[in-house]
Amino acid sequence: MTHTSFAPRGSTAEIEEGERLSPKFDADGLVTAVTVDADDGTVLMVAHMDARALALTIETGVAHYFSRSRGKLWKKGEESGQFQTLVELRVDCDQDAVVLRVRMPSLGPGVPGAACHTGHRSCFFRSVPLGAAPTPELKLAVNDEGRLFDPAAVYGTPKKTDAPRF
Amino acid sequence: MTHTSFAPRGSTAEIEEGERLSPKFDADGLVTAVTVDADDGTVLMVAHMDARALALTIETGVAHYFSRSRGKLWKKGEESGQFQTLVELRVDCDQDAVVLRVRMPSLGPGVPGAACHTGHRSCFFRSVPLGAAPTPELKLAVNDEGRLFDPAAVYGTPKKTDAPRF
Repeated sequence: MTHTSFAPRGSTAEIEEGERLSPKFDADGLVTAVTVDADDGTVLMVAHMDARALALTIETGVAHYFSRSRGKLWKKGEESGQFQTLVELRVDCDQDAVVLRVRMPSLGPGVPGAACHTGHRSCFFRSVPLGAAPTPELKLAVNDEGRLFDPAAVYGTPKKTDAPRF
Repeated sequence: MTHTSFAPRGSTAEIEEGERLSPKFDADGLVTAVTVDADDGTVLMVAHMDARALALTIETGVAHYFSRSRGKLWKKGEESGQFQTLVELRVDCDQDAVVLRVRMPSLGPGVPGAACHTGHRSCFFRSVPLGAAPTPELKLAVNDEGRLFDPAAVYGTPKKTDAPRF
């Protein structure tokens, strides 16, 4: 599967307001993917897709990304079982970013799925205090209820990574 | 203002689960910024921030980005008046992306603000049909109620851009 799955880039008007999908892949061949909970809108994670991952996501309705840390296709949930089923896929005006509205398997009664390899529901589980210029001493605050699973139990020994891994 | 506003990058554990803000700027000096409506969670736009834009956003509580198309600081709303006031700023596990939960000025009674330079509320106003491999003929569907303002009236003659401009 290659870029020819998509329409060629046309005029600005065609790209920004037309009916064709003609993604703007960056120098690394990637678009930005923002994944949100389809039901409550929580931003779960930000990752990237190459043409193949985007095409597979569209075809299967299950989220596929390109792992920059591992340099390969990444079907989310391969290791953890936490697959992401798409309810909707959106594309932005200049077509260099997509939004995935997804559902994930519950981790137990009343417990949502978890998108972050740290065990948190969302990768964005810390907030930055506002209203003063940042300093190295600035202190982040945790904005969720903590881990929903133990990463060591799911993944084994922690590895260095620059992206969520499951 | 420079990177010294932020803590140095530490161990993976410190970065991913610690209390310090130590952003991972990419080769262009940018992090990814995802901006969502603070009230209903709608993803409004995806843009980028350099260290200065991130520091100004934290200090002022008003969204600042780095415009890649114009190569300079971009205080959203400069041209349109559609400033974005932060309710919360979140950072992800590896600290290469932030989520801005914002409020924008209403464009009229019962009309929300609009974050997209096309006049739509969100840049993500088109959806991609799922369930079949994409082809160049794939047809996007508009998923909102249309433009909330006339871009020509706000910006004058359209310009080529790779990012929302106001």
